[in-house]
Amino acid sequence: MTTTYADLPVVVDRAAGSPLAAQISEQVRAAVTGGVLHAGDRLPSSRDLAATLGVSRTVISTAYARLFAEGWLEGRHGSGTYVADVAPVPSPAPATAGEWPTEPPIAGTVGHSPARGAGTVGHSPPEREPGAPGAPALIELQPGIPWTGGIDPAAWRRAWRYAGTRPPSQWPDPHGLPALRGELAGYLRRSRGLGVTPANILVTRGVAGGLALLAATLLRPGDKVGVEEPGYQAAREVLGRAGALIVPCRVDAHGVVPDELPGDLRLLYTTPAHQYPLGARLPVGRRQAVTAWARATGAIVVEDDYDSEFRYDVGPLPALYSVDPDVIVYLGTASKVLAPAFGAGWLVAAPALVERIARLRPALGERVPEPVQHALLALLTSGDLERHIRRMRLEYARRRAALTGGLAAAGPGGYQLRGDTAGMHVVLEVAAGTPAADVAAAAAANGVGLHTLDRYFAGPPSISGLVLGYGATPLTQVRRAAAILAPLLAGLPRLQ
Amino acid sequence: MTTTYADLPVVVDRAAGSPLAAQISEQVRAAVTGGVLHAGDRLPSSRDLAATLGVSRTVISTAYARLFAEGWLEGRHGSGTYVADVAPVPSPAPATAGEWPTEPPIAGTVGHSPARGAGTVGHSPPEREPGAPGAPALIELQPGIPWTGGIDPAAWRRAWRYAGTRPPSQWPDPHGLPALRGELAGYLRRSRGLGVTPANILVTRGVAGGLALLAATLLRPGDKVGVEEPGYQAAREVLGRAGALIVPCRVDAHGVVPDELPGDLRLLYTTPAHQYPLGARLPVGRRQAVTAWARATGAIVVEDDYDSEFRYDVGPLPALYSVDPDVIVYLGTASKVLAPAFGAGWLVAAPALVERIARLRPALGERVPEPVQHALLALLTSGDLERHIRRMRLEYARRRAALTGGLAAAGPGGYQLRGDTAGMHVVLEVAAGTPAADVAAAAAANGVGLHTLDRYFAGPPSISGLVLGYGATPLTQVRRAAAILAPLLAGLPRLQ
Repeated sequence: MTTTYADLPVVVDRAAGSPLAAQISEQVRAAVTGGVLHAGDRLPSSRDLAATLGVSRTVISTAYARLFAEGWLEGRHGSGTYVADVAPVPSPAPATAGEWPTEPPIAGTVGHSPARGAGTVGHSPPEREPGAPGAPALIELQPGIPWTGGIDPAAWRRAWRYAGTRPPSQWPDPHGLPALRGELAGYLRRSRGLGVTPANILVTRGVAGGLALLAATLLRPGDKVGVEEPGYQAAREVLGRAGALIVPCRVDAHGVVPDELPGDLRLLYTTPAHQYPLGARLPVGRRQAVTAWARATGAIVVEDDYDSEFRYDVGPLPALYSVDPDVIVYLGTASKVLAPAFGAGWLVAAPALVERIARLRPALGERVPEPVQHALLALLTSGDLERHIRRMRLEYARRRAALTGGLAAAGPGGYQLRGDTAGMHVVLEVAAGTPAADVAAAAAANGVGLHTLDRYFAGPPSISGLVLGYGATPLTQVRRAAAILAPLLAGLPRLQ
Repeated sequence: MTTTYADLPVVVDRAAGSPLAAQISEQVRAAVTGGVLHAGDRLPSSRDLAATLGVSRTVISTAYARLFAEGWLEGRHGSGTYVADVAPVPSPAPATAGEWPTEPPIAGTVGHSPARGAGTVGHSPPEREPGAPGAPALIELQPGIPWTGGIDPAAWRRAWRYAGTRPPSQWPDPHGLPALRGELAGYLRRSRGLGVTPANILVTRGVAGGLALLAATLLRPGDKVGVEEPGYQAAREVLGRAGALIVPCRVDAHGVVPDELPGDLRLLYTTPAHQYPLGARLPVGRRQAVTAWARATGAIVVEDDYDSEFRYDVGPLPALYSVDPDVIVYLGTASKVLAPAFGAGWLVAAPALVERIARLRPALGERVPEPVQHALLALLTSGDLERHIRRMRLEYARRRAALTGGLAAAGPGGYQLRGDTAGMHVVLEVAAGTPAADVAAAAAANGVGLHTLDRYFAGPPSISGLVLGYGATPLTQVRRAAAILAPLLAGLPRLQ
């Protein structure tokens, strides 16, 4: 079934505040998400659509380019533009998806049971054990955890089967496997526009592993390290335990505030693509200000690009790394894309810094298991990783829409959504003085587990709010959670 | 071909200093190593051999029990005692062993080339790159690296193929996979006599990973931590970078000296089974003294049991952990048995401490990739891991004998072997004042790479010496290295 121009549900509104290209890409995206457009449907050429809508061809090209970059569209050489294969993922849970063996081949092997049994706390806060015996199953809305049920079992099997055919190295390369560094350079070029070569890349265990290596290489005990406030707790933990003095650096609605950065930081940990947890995308002016500050003070800026794969409206800005590769270190991870315990990521930096880390690394006894590197290599070269990302982007976009749509039933006034339409969580700001912990407790009593914003602050919280993750939660449960939460939010005091 | 009693080349000498059981087990071991006894050969019953040799049956039972524990013998129910399948491993190098695919299925994948190419330094000291282009190939005698060429490709493939069939957990257990903890408890019971349950076990990334978790859980900045002197450099690095003040604790010919341990240590890192690098086995009296010291001062003793799998004369003493599980934490690793970049190990401790670590762990972003855990589980349940260990034990015993035998051509006086007949390296002590670095430089000029003892000291070295590893070096190369080194050693000043 091919959609022709006539069927393409796109209109433009010159009176609206948003750019025309954004209006168009947003409507195409909504048409795919909403099931109006399907994989393989052909889109009009940019010339034809421009004529139909009465806009310039550049507007259409810009809109299409964005949709291409985000994976919604694909081109077939010489034959036009099509909706990409963003097939619905298996649903509702992989345990019933049929493709994973139901009986473990090894007796006693525990398969894919979410946090069942004593002592299994996972990413949950220690005070709450999801699915504790006797309690009704909690719908967990935890941020930062990708949906492992969305992994294609066949792709997973292929990757590890390949890894098993590679002989383990007698002298493992402390940079990571050369072939993997090559593939990662290509992947980062395609997905983030980074102009890097393998010499810029070091394979890590993930973001925390990359931070630990940076700390070991660059920091002396007592060095001051800036971390966004609010910010990623594991970054504070890893850097603080490496002997750094953590300096909270204030974040506002646009991300970290460059004018307030102190002059004596050795390192600054940031999340410019999607501030964690508030969700801002650092604007271009601030990006320049932060790198100028780093140049002036001699600090290194760490750019944690943890979930830039998942944006549902506009595409991400180019990575901060591109602005000044000499003072920025870029961190990425496969754990936020594939599975929490995948265990591989990448660090991108100037080649001299990559060498310093690689030379220090053996003395720390720190390695990324080679089979994990081989498996990631296989997922990259086969295209399975990028296919997975496209499918998850669509799935998370649907869950996000279901969550925010369901919460809207609470009516206006009690909360405000913060941050971009991106990633795997939303932040609800509530009125100052509203004890977010009480809302969380009421939610838990009604069967929904969520976090308060407090835990992301090192000092006293400047905003009251709730963090609702949907990465690990299937669509039906997200809908149910929103239906449970809306009445609780409706009763909240009005936010100014 | 079955060996009968008459063929068993064993005699006893009551005038010799060593116990009769040790004499017998040593001769049986030598008969297997030397190719006199073969896999499947049947041994006489303990009653018959006792009668033949004119010793008590207890002597024979003791000797056989030791040989069983070390894996040289196996019993078949109701049908006697046989030489175990310690088949020779593929030789000389896995690149030619035929079972690994010769063409990588993924273009550009670098297979099993030992440290070739720019930037590939592996475990080598940064100042020396093995196999640098243009240079003649160096025979590397590096300690602590197992022979990856000895891995059975079919077993490796099976383990990772199995791992690929397991769905990744949505909420990974921070203790490690429950099924793996269960298998590890059984393995540690069989191989080390540890009376532990899964509640005592936490899956780690390896010894360095276990130390980092212990440091994060137990240490505050400025806490004093004892490390054997000389000792394992990575332990000093990991603990020091976690903010601890490292206190060198003297080691003599019997291991760490308990009488000299200070009273204000929070943690003591030790290698009681096989002191790293000097090779002593801590005697029973000192074991009791160390645990009494820990009880009295409130310190925790870390027992790094890194290579107890490999002993070629007497078996290991029971783990120190058995003496007092409340004050000892036991660390083991698969990386010293399988491959440097395997990436999984285990920590054994009181259940309360295991819980504390597991609760802290998610905040550190520290995980063991689940497929690695599944692969280790598969290697344990299939018996492939223990088969591999038996084969490697035989192989390393042969290499060790070839190395020490070849060096003996230097004649007496210039050096002295230190430590037990165990592990994957030997230590040659040379006369104080002999610059070991000069010997190492001369060896390198003649094509043999080795380390000096200096690098294992935090302070000024109290012993001059060389460390020669044979784990990563095939037998033919070990022989050639010994032939190159013997003349260099013959020229050394006499050791007092």
